[in-house]
Amino acid sequence: MEVSALAFDVFGTVVDWHSSVAAEVGEAAVRNGLPLADGAAEEFAGEWRRRYGPSMDRVRSGEIDWTALDDLHRASLVGVARQFSLEGLGEAELDRLNLAWHRLRPWPDAVEGLGRLRRRHVLCTLSNGNVALLVDLARFGGLPFDCILSAELCHAYKPDPRTYRMVPALLRRRPEQVMMVAAHAVDLRAAAAEGLRTAHVHRPLEWGDAGGEERPPDDAFDVVAADFLDLAAKLEAAAG
Amino acid sequence: MEVSALAFDVFGTVVDWHSSVAAEVGEAAVRNGLPLADGAAEEFAGEWRRRYGPSMDRVRSGEIDWTALDDLHRASLVGVARQFSLEGLGEAELDRLNLAWHRLRPWPDAVEGLGRLRRRHVLCTLSNGNVALLVDLARFGGLPFDCILSAELCHAYKPDPRTYRMVPALLRRRPEQVMMVAAHAVDLRAAAAEGLRTAHVHRPLEWGDAGGEERPPDDAFDVVAADFLDLAAKLEAAAG
Repeated sequence: MEVSALAFDVFGTVVDWHSSVAAEVGEAAVRNGLPLADGAAEEFAGEWRRRYGPSMDRVRSGEIDWTALDDLHRASLVGVARQFSLEGLGEAELDRLNLAWHRLRPWPDAVEGLGRLRRRHVLCTLSNGNVALLVDLARFGGLPFDCILSAELCHAYKPDPRTYRMVPALLRRRPEQVMMVAAHAVDLRAAAAEGLRTAHVHRPLEWGDAGGEERPPDDAFDVVAADFLDLAAKLEAAAG
Repeated sequence: MEVSALAFDVFGTVVDWHSSVAAEVGEAAVRNGLPLADGAAEEFAGEWRRRYGPSMDRVRSGEIDWTALDDLHRASLVGVARQFSLEGLGEAELDRLNLAWHRLRPWPDAVEGLGRLRRRHVLCTLSNGNVALLVDLARFGGLPFDCILSAELCHAYKPDPRTYRMVPALLRRRPEQVMMVAAHAVDLRAAAAEGLRTAHVHRPLEWGDAGGEERPPDDAFDVVAADFLDLAAKLEAAAG
Protein backbone atom coordinates (compact mmCIF):
# COMPACT_ATOMS: atom_id res chain seq x y z
CA MET A 1 0.00 0.00 0.00
CA GLU A 2 1.21 3.49 -0.82
CA VAL A 3 -1.62 5.47 0.76
CA SER A 4 -0.39 8.93 1.76
CA ALA A 5 -3.67 10.77 2.34
CA LEU A 6 -6.82 9.85 4.23
CA ALA A 7 -10.21 11.41 3.46
CA PHE A 8 -12.74 11.16 6.28
CA ASP A 9 -16.46 11.01 6.19
CA VAL A 10 -17.48 13.06 9.22
CA PHE A 11 -21.08 12.59 10.45
CA GLY A 12 -21.17 9.28 12.26
CA THR A 13 -17.58 8.40 11.33
CA VAL A 14 -15.64 11.10 13.22
CA VAL A 15 -18.37 12.62 15.37
CA ASP A 16 -21.38 11.34 17.30
CA TRP A 17 -24.16 13.41 15.79
CA HIS A 18 -26.97 11.48 17.47
CA SER A 19 -26.24 12.12 21.12
CA SER A 20 -24.90 15.63 20.43
CA VAL A 21 -27.97 16.82 18.53
CA ALA A 22 -30.33 15.10 20.98
CA ALA A 23 -28.68 16.95 23.87
CA GLU A 24 -29.15 20.32 22.18
CA VAL A 25 -32.76 19.52 21.28
CA GLY A 26 -33.48 18.70 24.93
CA GLU A 27 -31.77 21.88 26.11
CA ALA A 28 -33.66 24.05 23.63
CA ALA A 29 -36.97 22.51 24.70
CA VAL A 30 -36.31 23.10 28.39
CA ARG A 31 -34.99 26.62 27.77
CA ASN A 32 -38.26 27.48 26.05
CA GLY A 33 -40.57 25.81 28.60
CA LEU A 34 -41.48 23.03 26.18
CA PRO A 35 -40.09 19.93 27.86
CA LEU A 36 -40.12 16.71 25.91
CA ALA A 37 -41.11 13.20 26.98
CA ASP A 38 -38.33 10.73 27.81
CA GLY A 39 -36.51 9.66 24.67
CA ALA A 40 -38.19 12.27 22.46
CA ALA A 41 -35.03 14.35 22.02
CA GLU A 42 -33.24 11.24 20.74
CA GLU A 43 -36.13 10.49 18.40
CA PHE A 44 -36.05 14.11 17.22
CA ALA A 45 -32.35 13.79 16.36
CA GLY A 46 -33.00 10.57 14.44
CA GLU A 47 -35.93 12.04 12.56
CA TRP A 48 -33.94 15.15 11.61
CA ARG A 49 -31.16 12.95 10.28
CA ARG A 50 -33.60 10.75 8.35
CA ARG A 51 -34.57 13.84 6.36
CA TYR A 52 -30.90 14.36 5.36
CA GLY A 53 -30.89 11.95 2.42
CA PRO A 54 -34.21 13.10 0.94
CA SER A 55 -33.18 16.76 1.31
CA MET A 56 -29.95 16.14 -0.65
CA ASP A 57 -31.93 14.17 -3.23
CA ARG A 58 -33.70 17.40 -4.16
CA VAL A 59 -30.31 18.88 -5.08
CA ARG A 60 -29.07 15.70 -6.75
CA SER A 61 -32.15 15.48 -8.96
CA GLY A 62 -31.90 19.12 -9.98
CA GLU A 63 -35.25 19.94 -8.36
CA ILE A 64 -33.48 22.75 -6.50
CA ASP A 65 -30.17 24.52 -7.14
CA TRP A 66 -27.11 23.80 -5.08
CA THR A 67 -28.00 24.32 -1.43
CA ALA A 68 -25.52 23.99 1.43
CA LEU A 69 -26.23 21.44 4.14
CA ASP A 70 -26.79 24.15 6.77
CA ASP A 71 -29.72 25.37 4.70
CA LEU A 72 -31.09 21.88 4.04
CA HIS A 73 -30.88 21.18 7.80
CA ARG A 74 -32.69 24.42 8.57
CA ALA A 75 -35.50 23.67 6.13
CA SER A 76 -35.92 20.13 7.51
CA LEU A 77 -35.93 21.43 11.05
CA VAL A 78 -39.22 23.26 10.57
CA GLY A 79 -41.02 20.01 9.79
CA VAL A 80 -39.34 18.04 12.56
CA ALA A 81 -40.18 20.73 15.13
CA ARG A 82 -43.81 20.56 14.04
CA GLN A 83 -43.79 16.77 14.28
CA PHE A 84 -42.58 16.96 17.89
CA SER A 85 -44.91 19.83 18.82
CA LEU A 86 -42.01 22.24 19.17
CA GLU A 87 -43.40 24.94 16.89
CA GLY A 88 -43.15 27.13 19.99
CA LEU A 89 -39.43 27.47 19.40
CA GLY A 90 -39.11 30.78 17.59
CA GLU A 91 -37.03 31.48 14.51
CA ALA A 92 -34.02 32.56 16.56
CA GLU A 93 -34.12 29.35 18.63
CA LEU A 94 -34.42 27.26 15.48
CA ASP A 95 -31.43 29.12 13.98
CA ARG A 96 -29.48 28.36 17.14
CA LEU A 97 -30.55 24.72 17.21
CA ASN A 98 -29.56 24.34 13.56
CA LEU A 99 -26.00 25.09 14.62
CA ALA A 100 -26.04 21.97 16.81
CA TRP A 101 -24.57 20.33 13.70
CA HIS A 102 -21.51 22.58 14.14
CA ARG A 103 -20.97 21.32 17.71
CA LEU A 104 -20.92 17.55 17.43
CA ARG A 105 -18.76 15.62 19.89
CA PRO A 106 -15.99 13.44 18.44
CA TRP A 107 -16.16 9.71 19.16
CA PRO A 108 -13.87 8.90 22.11
CA ASP A 109 -11.05 7.55 19.91
CA ALA A 110 -11.27 10.24 17.22
CA VAL A 111 -8.89 12.98 18.40
CA GLU A 112 -6.12 10.65 19.52
CA GLY A 113 -6.61 8.44 16.48
CA LEU A 114 -6.45 11.36 14.02
CA GLY A 115 -3.34 12.68 15.76
CA ARG A 116 -1.64 9.34 15.35
CA LEU A 117 -2.77 8.93 11.71
CA ARG A 118 -1.56 12.43 10.89
CA ARG A 119 2.05 11.50 11.59
CA ARG A 120 2.23 9.51 8.36
CA HIS A 121 -0.70 10.81 6.33
CA VAL A 122 -2.30 14.01 5.15
CA LEU A 123 -5.77 14.11 6.70
CA CYS A 124 -8.74 15.78 5.06
CA THR A 125 -12.47 15.70 5.48
CA LEU A 126 -14.70 14.63 2.62
CA SER A 127 -18.15 15.37 3.93
CA ASN A 128 -21.51 16.55 2.72
CA GLY A 129 -21.33 19.16 5.46
CA ASN A 130 -20.54 22.63 4.14
CA VAL A 131 -17.15 24.22 4.76
CA ALA A 132 -18.26 26.54 7.57
CA LEU A 133 -19.91 23.66 9.39
CA LEU A 134 -16.81 21.49 9.09
CA VAL A 135 -14.49 24.31 10.20
CA ASP A 136 -16.63 24.82 13.31
CA LEU A 137 -16.73 21.08 13.99
CA ALA A 138 -12.96 20.76 13.70
CA ARG A 139 -12.42 23.70 16.06
CA PHE A 140 -15.09 22.49 18.50
CA GLY A 141 -13.71 18.98 18.67
CA GLY A 142 -10.01 19.77 18.29
CA LEU A 143 -9.84 17.61 15.16
CA PRO A 144 -6.40 17.92 13.54
CA PHE A 145 -7.36 17.88 9.86
CA ASP A 146 -4.84 19.30 7.42
CA CYS A 147 -7.52 20.39 4.99
CA ILE A 148 -11.29 20.78 4.93
CA LEU A 149 -12.76 19.31 1.74
CA SER A 150 -16.49 19.36 1.29
CA ALA A 151 -19.15 18.46 -1.24
CA GLU A 152 -19.77 22.21 -1.26
CA LEU A 153 -16.52 22.74 -3.17
CA CYS A 154 -17.84 20.82 -6.16
CA HIS A 155 -21.54 21.59 -5.67
CA ALA A 156 -22.39 17.91 -5.66
CA TYR A 157 -23.28 15.65 -2.76
CA LYS A 158 -21.70 12.29 -2.05
CA PRO A 159 -21.94 9.71 -3.48
CA ASP A 160 -21.56 11.80 -6.65
CA PRO A 161 -18.28 10.67 -8.30
CA ARG A 162 -17.08 14.28 -8.56
CA THR A 163 -16.70 14.48 -4.79
CA TYR A 164 -14.31 11.51 -4.65
CA ARG A 165 -12.35 12.65 -7.70
CA MET A 166 -11.82 16.05 -6.06
CA VAL A 167 -9.61 14.62 -3.33
CA PRO A 168 -6.74 13.17 -5.39
CA ALA A 169 -7.05 16.11 -7.82
CA LEU A 170 -6.59 18.75 -5.11
CA LEU A 171 -4.01 16.76 -3.14
CA ARG A 172 -2.10 15.95 -6.36
CA ARG A 173 -2.06 12.25 -5.78
CA ARG A 174 -3.17 9.23 -7.73
CA PRO A 175 -6.57 7.88 -6.60
CA GLU A 176 -4.98 4.77 -5.09
CA GLN A 177 -2.81 6.97 -2.86
CA VAL A 178 -5.96 8.25 -1.13
CA MET A 179 -8.00 6.18 1.31
CA MET A 180 -11.60 7.02 2.13
CA VAL A 181 -12.45 6.34 5.78
CA ALA A 182 -16.14 5.94 6.64
CA ALA A 183 -18.61 4.05 8.75
CA HIS A 184 -20.92 3.67 5.77
CA ALA A 185 -20.57 1.08 3.04
CA VAL A 186 -22.35 3.18 0.41
CA ASP A 187 -19.76 5.95 0.80
CA LEU A 188 -16.87 3.52 0.58
CA ARG A 189 -18.23 1.68 -2.43
CA ALA A 190 -18.62 4.97 -4.33
CA ALA A 191 -15.06 5.95 -3.37
CA ALA A 192 -13.75 2.58 -4.54
CA ALA A 193 -15.49 3.05 -7.88
CA GLU A 194 -13.28 6.14 -8.41
CA GLY A 195 -10.14 4.20 -7.55
CA LEU A 196 -9.70 5.30 -3.93
CA ARG A 197 -8.70 2.83 -1.22
CA THR A 198 -11.23 2.22 1.50
CA ALA A 199 -11.27 1.76 5.27
CA HIS A 200 -14.42 0.85 7.14
CA VAL A 201 -14.73 1.90 10.77
CA HIS A 202 -17.57 0.37 12.73
CA ARG A 203 -19.69 2.86 14.68
CA PRO A 204 -22.49 0.78 16.20
CA LEU A 205 -23.83 3.68 18.28
CA GLU A 206 -24.23 6.10 15.38
CA TRP A 207 -28.02 6.03 15.75
CA GLY A 208 -27.89 5.68 19.52
CA ASP A 209 -29.22 2.52 21.09
CA ALA A 210 -31.43 2.06 18.04
CA GLY A 211 -28.49 0.35 16.35
CA GLY A 212 -26.40 1.39 13.39
CA GLU A 213 -25.80 0.21 9.90
CA GLU A 214 -25.36 -3.50 9.44
CA ARG A 215 -21.70 -4.43 9.58
CA PRO A 216 -20.47 -5.12 6.05
CA PRO A 217 -18.45 -8.23 5.26
CA ASP A 218 -14.80 -7.85 6.25
CA ASP A 219 -13.54 -8.56 2.74
CA ALA A 220 -15.43 -5.67 1.13
CA PHE A 221 -12.80 -3.00 1.92
CA ASP A 222 -9.03 -2.60 2.03
CA VAL A 223 -9.05 -2.15 5.79
CA VAL A 224 -11.72 -2.88 8.39
CA ALA A 225 -11.07 -1.23 11.74
CA ALA A 226 -12.81 -1.04 15.09
CA ASP A 227 -11.92 2.63 15.53
CA PHE A 228 -9.29 5.20 14.49
CA LEU A 229 -6.62 3.82 16.82
CA ASP A 230 -7.12 0.39 15.31
CA LEU A 231 -6.96 1.96 11.85
CA ALA A 232 -3.67 3.66 12.74
CA ALA A 233 -2.24 0.39 14.02
CA LYS A 234 -3.29 -1.45 10.87
CA LEU A 235 -1.88 1.17 8.50
CA GLU A 236 1.37 1.29 10.48
CA ALA A 237 1.65 -2.50 10.31
CA ALA A 238 0.99 -2.50 6.55
CA ALA A 239 3.68 0.17 6.03
CA GLY A 240 6.14 -1.99 7.94
CA MET B 1 -15.09 45.82 14.33
CA GLU B 2 -16.84 42.50 14.14
CA VAL B 3 -14.19 40.56 12.27
CA SER B 4 -14.46 36.85 13.07
CA ALA B 5 -12.34 35.30 10.33
CA LEU B 6 -8.89 36.14 8.99
CA ALA B 7 -7.76 35.19 5.48
CA PHE B 8 -3.99 35.12 5.01
CA ASP B 9 -1.92 35.70 1.97
CA VAL B 10 0.89 33.18 2.34
CA PHE B 11 4.01 33.78 0.18
CA GLY B 12 5.90 36.61 1.81
CA THR B 13 3.20 37.25 4.41
CA VAL B 14 3.32 34.01 6.43
CA VAL B 15 6.45 32.38 5.04
CA ASP B 16 9.88 33.54 3.91
CA TRP B 17 10.01 32.17 0.39
CA HIS B 18 13.20 34.01 -0.57
CA SER B 19 15.68 32.52 1.87
CA SER B 20 13.95 29.11 1.82
CA VAL B 21 14.03 28.73 -1.96
CA ALA B 22 17.57 30.13 -2.18
CA ALA B 23 18.76 27.52 0.33
CA GLU B 24 17.26 24.67 -1.71
CA VAL B 25 18.69 26.05 -4.94
CA GLY B 26 22.15 26.13 -3.38
CA GLU B 27 21.78 22.59 -2.04
CA ALA B 28 20.61 21.25 -5.39
CA ALA B 29 23.54 22.88 -7.17
CA VAL B 30 26.10 21.44 -4.77
CA ARG B 31 24.44 18.01 -4.79
CA ASN B 32 24.82 17.92 -8.56
CA GLY B 33 28.37 19.24 -8.71
CA LEU B 34 27.27 22.57 -10.16
CA PRO B 35 28.20 25.05 -7.43
CA LEU B 36 26.98 28.61 -7.83
CA ALA B 37 28.80 31.89 -7.30
CA ASP B 38 28.19 33.78 -4.08
CA GLY B 39 24.73 35.29 -4.05
CA ALA B 40 23.59 33.43 -7.17
CA ALA B 41 21.18 31.17 -5.29
CA GLU B 42 19.47 34.25 -3.84
CA GLU B 43 19.31 35.81 -7.30
CA PHE B 44 17.90 32.54 -8.65
CA ALA B 45 15.10 32.63 -6.05
CA GLY B 46 14.28 36.23 -6.90
CA GLU B 47 14.26 35.55 -10.64
CA TRP B 48 11.98 32.52 -10.20
CA ARG B 49 9.59 34.63 -8.19
CA ARG B 50 9.65 37.44 -10.74
CA ARG B 51 8.24 34.98 -13.27
CA TYR B 52 5.29 34.27 -10.95
CA GLY B 53 3.14 37.24 -12.00
CA PRO B 54 3.71 36.83 -15.75
CA SER B 55 3.01 33.09 -15.50
CA MET B 56 -0.36 33.75 -13.81
CA ASP B 57 -1.11 36.43 -16.39
CA ARG B 58 -1.21 33.71 -19.03
CA VAL B 59 -4.06 32.08 -17.08
CA ARG B 60 -5.77 35.39 -16.29
CA SER B 61 -5.77 36.42 -19.94
CA GLY B 62 -7.16 33.09 -21.07
CA GLU B 63 -4.03 32.33 -23.10
CA ILE B 64 -3.85 29.00 -21.26
CA ASP B 65 -6.45 27.03 -19.30
CA TRP B 66 -6.45 26.95 -15.54
CA THR B 67 -3.02 25.76 -14.40
CA ALA B 68 -2.09 25.17 -10.77
CA LEU B 69 0.81 27.15 -9.33
CA ASP B 70 2.94 24.01 -8.94
CA ASP B 71 2.80 23.60 -12.71
CA LEU B 72 3.46 27.28 -13.42
CA HIS B 73 6.46 27.13 -11.08
CA ARG B 74 7.76 24.04 -12.83
CA ALA B 75 7.46 25.62 -16.27
CA SER B 76 9.24 28.79 -15.09
CA LEU B 77 11.98 26.77 -13.46
CA VAL B 78 13.24 25.47 -16.81
CA GLY B 79 14.00 28.99 -17.98
CA VAL B 80 15.52 30.11 -14.70
CA ALA B 81 17.79 27.05 -14.58
CA ARG B 82 19.00 27.85 -18.08
CA GLN B 83 19.61 31.49 -17.13
CA PHE B 84 21.82 30.39 -14.22
CA SER B 85 23.58 27.67 -16.24
CA LEU B 86 21.96 24.92 -14.20
CA GLU B 87 20.59 22.94 -17.15
CA GLY B 88 22.72 20.12 -15.75
CA LEU B 89 20.07 19.52 -13.11
CA GLY B 90 18.05 16.66 -14.55
CA GLU B 91 14.27 16.40 -14.68
CA ALA B 92 14.10 14.57 -11.35
CA GLU B 93 16.20 17.26 -9.62
CA LEU B 94 14.04 20.00 -11.12
CA ASP B 95 10.91 18.18 -9.90
CA ARG B 96 12.45 18.01 -6.45
CA LEU B 97 13.53 21.65 -6.49
CA ASN B 98 10.04 22.69 -7.57
CA LEU B 99 8.78 21.32 -4.26
CA ALA B 100 10.95 23.88 -2.44
CA TRP B 101 7.76 25.99 -2.56
CA HIS B 102 6.10 23.35 -0.34
CA ARG B 103 8.84 23.74 2.31
CA LEU B 104 9.02 27.45 3.02
CA ARG B 105 10.00 28.55 6.51
CA PRO B 106 7.49 30.66 8.45
CA TRP B 107 8.59 34.13 9.52
CA PRO B 108 9.79 34.01 13.14
CA ASP B 109 6.53 35.48 14.54
CA ALA B 110 4.18 33.48 12.34
CA VAL B 111 3.47 30.29 14.31
CA GLU B 112 3.06 31.99 17.67
CA GLY B 113 1.09 34.83 16.11
CA LEU B 114 -1.31 32.54 14.28
CA GLY B 115 -1.84 30.52 17.45
CA ARG B 116 -2.77 33.66 19.34
CA LEU B 117 -5.02 34.97 16.54
CA ARG B 118 -6.77 31.61 16.32
CA ARG B 119 -8.17 31.94 19.84
CA ARG B 120 -10.68 34.54 18.65
CA HIS B 121 -10.80 34.06 14.90
CA VAL B 122 -11.20 31.40 12.27
CA LEU B 123 -7.97 31.37 10.26
CA CYS B 124 -7.80 30.44 6.60
CA THR B 125 -5.32 30.86 3.82
CA LEU B 126 -6.23 32.76 0.68
CA SER B 127 -3.29 32.16 -1.57
CA ASN B 128 -2.48 31.64 -5.21
CA GLY B 129 -0.67 28.51 -4.13
CA ASN B 130 -2.58 25.35 -4.96
CA VAL B 131 -4.20 23.29 -2.22
CA ALA B 132 -1.55 20.55 -2.10
CA LEU B 133 1.22 23.14 -1.84
CA LEU B 134 -0.56 24.96 0.99
CA VAL B 135 -1.31 21.72 2.87
CA ASP B 136 2.38 20.80 2.70
CA LEU B 137 3.42 24.30 3.80
CA ALA B 138 1.07 24.24 6.77
CA ARG B 139 2.35 20.82 7.86
CA PHE B 140 5.99 21.78 7.26
CA GLY B 141 5.75 24.98 9.26
CA GLY B 142 3.22 23.87 11.88
CA LEU B 143 0.83 26.62 10.78
CA PRO B 144 -2.49 26.27 12.63
CA PHE B 145 -4.93 27.21 9.86
CA ASP B 146 -8.53 26.07 10.28
CA CYS B 147 -9.07 25.85 6.57
CA ILE B 148 -7.01 25.91 3.37
CA LEU B 149 -8.59 28.18 0.78
CA SER B 150 -6.82 28.67 -2.50
CA ALA B 151 -7.26 30.39 -5.84
CA GLU B 152 -7.35 26.83 -7.16
CA LEU B 153 -10.83 26.36 -5.67
CA CYS B 154 -12.29 29.01 -7.95
CA HIS B 155 -9.84 28.57 -10.84
CA ALA B 156 -8.94 32.25 -10.74
CA TYR B 157 -5.81 33.92 -9.42
CA LYS B 158 -5.75 36.84 -7.02
CA PRO B 159 -6.50 39.67 -7.43
CA ASP B 160 -9.53 38.28 -9.29
CA PRO B 161 -12.62 39.36 -7.28
CA ARG B 162 -13.92 35.78 -7.20
CA THR B 163 -11.10 34.74 -4.92
CA TYR B 164 -12.00 37.31 -2.25
CA ARG B 165 -15.75 36.63 -2.55
CA MET B 166 -15.10 32.93 -1.99
CA VAL B 167 -13.99 33.47 1.61
CA PRO B 168 -17.13 35.00 3.14
CA ALA B 169 -19.26 32.71 0.95
CA LEU B 170 -17.62 29.51 2.21
CA LEU B 171 -17.27 30.71 5.81
CA ARG B 172 -20.89 31.97 5.79
CA ARG B 173 -20.00 35.44 6.92
CA ARG B 174 -20.62 38.91 5.62
CA PRO B 175 -17.61 40.37 3.76
CA GLU B 176 -16.95 42.87 6.56
CA GLN B 177 -16.61 40.00 9.04
CA VAL B 178 -13.56 38.75 7.12
CA MET B 179 -10.18 40.46 7.24
CA MET B 180 -7.54 39.89 4.57
CA VAL B 181 -4.02 39.85 6.00
CA ALA B 182 -1.17 40.48 3.58
CA ALA B 183 2.18 42.14 3.12
CA HIS B 184 1.12 43.41 -0.30
CA ALA B 185 -1.00 46.48 -0.94
CA VAL B 186 -2.37 45.20 -4.26
CA ASP B 187 -3.84 42.14 -2.54
CA LEU B 188 -5.41 44.22 0.22
CA ARG B 189 -6.86 46.82 -2.13
CA ALA B 190 -8.55 44.09 -4.18
CA ALA B 191 -9.93 42.51 -0.99
CA ALA B 192 -11.24 45.87 0.19
CA ALA B 193 -13.01 46.33 -3.14
CA GLU B 194 -15.05 43.21 -2.31
CA GLY B 195 -15.93 44.52 1.14
CA LEU B 196 -13.36 42.65 3.22
CA ARG B 197 -11.47 44.34 6.03
CA THR B 198 -7.71 44.64 5.58
CA ALA B 199 -4.59 44.27 7.68
CA HIS B 200 -1.17 45.11 6.33
CA VAL B 201 1.84 43.36 7.82
CA HIS B 202 5.23 44.73 6.87
CA ARG B 203 7.75 42.14 5.70
CA PRO B 204 10.82 44.14 4.70
CA LEU B 205 12.94 41.02 4.11
CA GLU B 206 10.53 39.36 1.68
CA TRP B 207 13.03 39.78 -1.17
CA GLY B 208 16.03 39.29 1.05
CA ASP B 209 18.44 42.17 1.47
CA ALA B 210 17.26 43.54 -1.86
CA GLY B 211 14.41 45.21 -0.01
CA GLY B 212 10.69 44.60 -0.12
CA GLU B 213 7.65 46.45 -1.30
CA GLU B 214 7.44 50.08 -0.36
CA ARG B 215 5.57 50.51 2.88
CA PRO B 216 2.08 51.81 2.12
CA PRO B 217 0.63 54.75 4.02
CA ASP B 218 -0.70 53.75 7.43
CA ASP B 219 -4.18 55.07 6.69
CA ALA B 220 -4.73 52.86 3.67
CA PHE B 221 -5.89 49.78 5.64
CA ASP B 222 -8.00 48.94 8.68
CA VAL B 223 -5.00 47.69 10.61
CA VAL B 224 -1.27 48.14 10.02
CA ALA B 225 0.89 45.75 12.00
CA ALA B 226 4.59 45.06 12.35
CA ASP B 227 4.02 41.29 12.52
CA PHE B 228 1.38 38.73 13.55
CA LEU B 229 1.92 39.25 17.27
CA ASP B 230 1.35 42.95 16.79
CA LEU B 231 -1.73 42.16 14.70
CA ALA B 232 -3.09 39.95 17.49
CA ALA B 233 -2.49 42.69 20.07
CA LYS B 234 -4.23 45.25 17.89
CA LEU B 235 -7.26 43.07 17.19
CA GLU B 236 -7.54 42.16 20.86
CA ALA B 237 -7.39 45.84 21.83
CA ALA B 238 -10.06 46.71 19.26
CA ALA B 239 -12.33 43.94 20.57
CA GLY B 240 -11.91 45.29 24.10
